[in-house]
Amino acid sequence: MADGRLVIGTQRYSSWSLRGWLSVRLAGLSVDIDVIPLAGGGKTTALKTLSPNGCVPYLEHHGAVVWDSLSIAEYCAEQDPDLWPADRCARAVARSISAEMHSGFRAVRVALPMNLGRDKRPPAAGFDEDVLKDIARIDALWTDARTRFGQEGAFLFGAEFGNADAMYAPIVARFLSYDVPGLSDSSRAYMQAVCQHPLMREWYDQAAQEPEDWYLDVYESLA
Amino acid sequence: MADGRLVIGTQRYSSWSLRGWLSVRLAGLSVDIDVIPLAGGGKTTALKTLSPNGCVPYLEHHGAVVWDSLSIAEYCAEQDPDLWPADRCARAVARSISAEMHSGFRAVRVALPMNLGRDKRPPAAGFDEDVLKDIARIDALWTDARTRFGQEGAFLFGAEFGNADAMYAPIVARFLSYDVPGLSDSSRAYMQAVCQHPLMREWYDQAAQEPEDWYLDVYESLA
Repeated sequence: MADGRLVIGTQRYSSWSLRGWLSVRLAGLSVDIDVIPLAGGGKTTALKTLSPNGCVPYLEHHGAVVWDSLSIAEYCAEQDPDLWPADRCARAVARSISAEMHSGFRAVRVALPMNLGRDKRPPAAGFDEDVLKDIARIDALWTDARTRFGQEGAFLFGAEFGNADAMYAPIVARFLSYDVPGLSDSSRAYMQAVCQHPLMREWYDQAAQEPEDWYLDVYESLA
Repeated sequence: MADGRLVIGTQRYSSWSLRGWLSVRLAGLSVDIDVIPLAGGGKTTALKTLSPNGCVPYLEHHGAVVWDSLSIAEYCAEQDPDLWPADRCARAVARSISAEMHSGFRAVRVALPMNLGRDKRPPAAGFDEDVLKDIARIDALWTDARTRFGQEGAFLFGAEFGNADAMYAPIVARFLSYDVPGLSDSSRAYMQAVCQHPLMREWYDQAAQEPEDWYLDVYESLA
């Protein structure tokens, strides 16, 4: 008997779902996972009637209802405080870069939608100035976090994959899919570590098993 | 001797600064407040060299560096846990609606920029469909939170003005400035309570004292 459920979208595409799923799994919450296939460019009726803001991820756990990837990350950290760094200053930075991801990097999100079926191919039109600016900022913040707080491990704040890594996991998937330029060696090593994490392997494997009729032209037809 | 500093933008316009300032003041952090006038449509050089993401609000406190209004809210809640509701389910909703505000309601933010000098005047062109959709969702989530968790007070989760109220305070200012339609009686009462809170009165008073050469045409010329 599970303690609740987590509702996510198509695993091939749903970057916000990936974040919430990672936090829930890292915290070891015992929940059923329900997948609702995404509709291109709009919310499905199933989602509109389920989640208060009509979006995934959506979590029910022991009577609590949580929507949005960042509030799920905080909810999970209440269950397992190790999801944020133990050091106060590191934790402040982890939350700041997570919030920066949560409300920002619009250029990357629009131009480089997550598509786990796309393998190392830049967009035909290349990367515009705003996308390159986002990439440079992400490279800088990853490098800064790892240099100051992550020296003892492969992840942003050390040896443990935590909430900040969960927030950036879809960016890692995008950067690999679109073979983005300009990343430091540190960032490339970090991306490899994220991809090789058992939970990321599990997510990629599940995405690869999704039926093709869930695929959406809006993402698959990107040159 | 203060324990650090909070850097904010022009109080007349900077909605993200208002949120961070409210959380810092609610938590009682002893910090100097530095105001950097905003530049229209871009980041100032002063901000770019100061804050990791080039944005306000930016907080330094006892060696910790925190940027972004939501991570400042969480940092302040570590100092004063009462900034989030004590009940686990209420807290999950408070964080969910705060996150929804943090990454969403783009239509309202673009069409109705915060301008504390504008008094109860709808935009000449009216409200488009996306703006009305945002207004309706905000009205619904305020009403839902107050009905389920806030019956014993004037704010979203009861008698105490907390982080969720701080996150929506700039929306209250906008809804009043632009005299938006379609709000429930509950939401109108909530907006009055927010405006009358001593910290909001203090912010409005300070904004009214800002020099006119900080005013920006991009906001002042909106019909």
